[in-house]
Amino acid sequence: MTDTSHENHHTENVQAHLKQVEALLHRHALVEEVAHKQELPRQDRHALVDTLLHKQHLTELQLKLESLHPADIAYILEALPIEQRLLVWDLVKSERDGEILIEVSDSVRESLIATMNREELRAAAGQLDADEIADLAPDLPQNVMRDVFKSLSIEEREHLRAAMSYSEDSVGALMDFNMIHVREDVTLEVVSRYLRRFDKLPDHTDQIFVVDRDDVFKGVLPINLIVVNEPEMLVRDLMLTDTIQLHPEEKADQAAQAFERYDLVSAPVIDEDKKLTGRVTVNVVLDFIRTESESDLLNQAGLREEEDIFASVWKSAKNRWTWLALNLCTAFFASRVIGGFEDTIEKFVALAALMPIVVGIAGNSANQTTTIIIRSLALGQITQGNARRLLIKELAISAFNGIVWGGIAGLFAYFLYHSVPLGVVMTSAMLLNLIVGAVVGMAIPLTMQKLGRDPAIGSSVMITAITDSGGFFIFLGLATIFLI
Amino acid sequence: MTDTSHENHHTENVQAHLKQVEALLHRHALVEEVAHKQELPRQDRHALVDTLLHKQHLTELQLKLESLHPADIAYILEALPIEQRLLVWDLVKSERDGEILIEVSDSVRESLIATMNREELRAAAGQLDADEIADLAPDLPQNVMRDVFKSLSIEEREHLRAAMSYSEDSVGALMDFNMIHVREDVTLEVVSRYLRRFDKLPDHTDQIFVVDRDDVFKGVLPINLIVVNEPEMLVRDLMLTDTIQLHPEEKADQAAQAFERYDLVSAPVIDEDKKLTGRVTVNVVLDFIRTESESDLLNQAGLREEEDIFASVWKSAKNRWTWLALNLCTAFFASRVIGGFEDTIEKFVALAALMPIVVGIAGNSANQTTTIIIRSLALGQITQGNARRLLIKELAISAFNGIVWGGIAGLFAYFLYHSVPLGVVMTSAMLLNLIVGAVVGMAIPLTMQKLGRDPAIGSSVMITAITDSGGFFIFLGLATIFLI
Repeated sequence: MTDTSHENHHTENVQAHLKQVEALLHRHALVEEVAHKQELPRQDRHALVDTLLHKQHLTELQLKLESLHPADIAYILEALPIEQRLLVWDLVKSERDGEILIEVSDSVRESLIATMNREELRAAAGQLDADEIADLAPDLPQNVMRDVFKSLSIEEREHLRAAMSYSEDSVGALMDFNMIHVREDVTLEVVSRYLRRFDKLPDHTDQIFVVDRDDVFKGVLPINLIVVNEPEMLVRDLMLTDTIQLHPEEKADQAAQAFERYDLVSAPVIDEDKKLTGRVTVNVVLDFIRTESESDLLNQAGLREEEDIFASVWKSAKNRWTWLALNLCTAFFASRVIGGFEDTIEKFVALAALMPIVVGIAGNSANQTTTIIIRSLALGQITQGNARRLLIKELAISAFNGIVWGGIAGLFAYFLYHSVPLGVVMTSAMLLNLIVGAVVGMAIPLTMQKLGRDPAIGSSVMITAITDSGGFFIFLGLATIFLI
Repeated sequence: MTDTSHENHHTENVQAHLKQVEALLHRHALVEEVAHKQELPRQDRHALVDTLLHKQHLTELQLKLESLHPADIAYILEALPIEQRLLVWDLVKSERDGEILIEVSDSVRESLIATMNREELRAAAGQLDADEIADLAPDLPQNVMRDVFKSLSIEEREHLRAAMSYSEDSVGALMDFNMIHVREDVTLEVVSRYLRRFDKLPDHTDQIFVVDRDDVFKGVLPINLIVVNEPEMLVRDLMLTDTIQLHPEEKADQAAQAFERYDLVSAPVIDEDKKLTGRVTVNVVLDFIRTESESDLLNQAGLREEEDIFASVWKSAKNRWTWLALNLCTAFFASRVIGGFEDTIEKFVALAALMPIVVGIAGNSANQTTTIIIRSLALGQITQGNARRLLIKELAISAFNGIVWGGIAGLFAYFLYHSVPLGVVMTSAMLLNLIVGAVVGMAIPLTMQKLGRDPAIGSSVMITAITDSGGFFIFLGLATIFLI
């Protein structure tokens, strides 16, 4: 437990604890079912709260909510339909609004902020640190941000300005300012006395930072070293100077890689003048990695962003449109390719039944290749030297798969339609299309990477477009030449 | 920096450091290019090392490798083709074998272990903690494991047995045994004196554990509390008793969820007799989350496991087969559905060109639904109460998309083939197939979850099978009724 302010929210055992939160969610859902059945318009929600029966339930619920960690309340809010979500949100003590807004997902945060007035938002933001306000900033109205800014101290304003000046995928966006710093010419005794002035140290303080008079970073002093060494030792003699340092403009995923490789709990962030400007902690990195991997999965299915499961139909539909529109265009194109061979199909209608096999398998195989390549790119395993080697390997796999699966498909076609040439055309088309798939499956993510774009976004739609249209063209083209 | 034994491996700045490791990789690749061009058989590798020119290069390389963190060496090994990988592996000091084997991916580990003899493997395992040996165990030959077991102390044997007795996805598999424990009736002074006996504390020691005479868990004492409190205070008065506790049989992903929600650095693992048996630390959780999310991405593309990019063609092909075979079966089935309508297609060949549009869009839309549902299941947001509501929402989105995109596709068909009935059939088929997609896109992951299976594995192949065959049937069926 690093956050000593929350330990009262943890029950004995995590399984039991999570179950209890879930049970609360269900029980609450029940309470709300009653409210919902009365079908009160949204404006009367407050009136409802005042009815006697509900008052009792709600008071009990409120007590429960008070004892929960903000992350648990965030979880409950995310899992509730909008009506019930807003009712729970009303029950949460307003002094906890800030910490909960930080925990919920972007889309749910939007739905909560939409119900709050300027004063409530200002108060919520006022409960937060500068780096947390920066996270909230894109969702807050301009005038609220102005109010918040005015209410901050000069140091906090500088922190907020710093945190907001870095792009979303940079180390600066992950950084917080809760670092403790000491000078190098003092003893551990002095450091300990200084630390004892804190009621508690900031979360994830596994090390304190050593700086000079001008805030120039000198090194780090792990808390563990304070504990295992004699009090009269000097910071200078114990501090570690050759440790990982982050720069605010660095890519966040490089920082995440460093946390993973070197098992860090926190790392200092140093600006170009070598001054200590902040720190990054492992919990933020954990959230970052989780969010990144989720957006990879969402992007693969063509979802622009994370979807609040209770968002409106219209909002959800819009989130899925770009992808469907793109797919419709490529499908139209593939359809025209087939249209060009209508005479052939008319003469040999079996082709219509067999052609989806040719394109389907190649599309799957190409997407396997792309998945491997995108992963290897992300891990930095692809160099100029080995790219050619990889291409040869992928081609070999496709050729091999083409002979095996194409052969089976060819036999399938032969047994169904009793035509040897048809079987041969089928096998050849599958072999060729699998090879096309391997080439584009490698070339597209590599090209996107070279152009500085994320290879995980949109690769699969392009690849499927090519294996579809290409497959129809190869199969129907071969059939036109050899069967007609 | 928590691991004080490695800080000499970190250069000033993470970007520069990662670049340097990459540069080393490329330079090494160059050195090896020379070796490779001479096309020496593998047995002569050692002879080659002895030639003068290479000796110089290799000595330099060896020095570089010695200064690197084991995770960096693991990264280099993973990015090298097998020949060069084994050469670098030979250059690594044998006393570092253990820590590097722990860091590399499963498939690369296999390739390294295959070159080591019994004695080397025993020595490598001997360098590791019991929990690390347990991770390595599945890849080690039986006789090596027997040797290793014999060489351990009684306590370590017990730890190894414990670590190996839990399933791969349980908390027990993530647990280590490097926890420090104290009694509750001592002062911080005594604790500090005890801690000073360590040269350094184990990595990620953000808290020590309080147990009684029988090892029964009493609470935790955050290191930070030792630092900020007066030495004469008693452990009993400071320790936190109501904190997250893990059980060894709990699901690992529940523990990961707890680490994420409550920003933990370490957590105690308690057995059913309330005895402290181990601890889980955030770096292991980070690795677990990364591995899980990667295997989600791999599974979506039908890759059974992570692939060593330099694995043999045969091995890689096998990794991709199950999926392709499954797809071929569903494609054969879809092909037979089309085959049933050959008469219709013969009379109206435009149907052949249009049918891929109907199935493609519905497949994509259904996979979007499934992605949302799988994610919501993983986050525990789907309850019995809201599942029906979600189904209605997904149906509404599909109906909406069906009218919009189906309408566009219908117009496309009308303008191309100048047939109003064809346009109407096209629109209706797309609308119906999108609705089928929404139903199976929700039903399949929910059913798999109910059956206790991972909804992320295989959902998409089943869904595509249904939207494909279903789409062909609906479109060609409607065409047979209304166009012929």
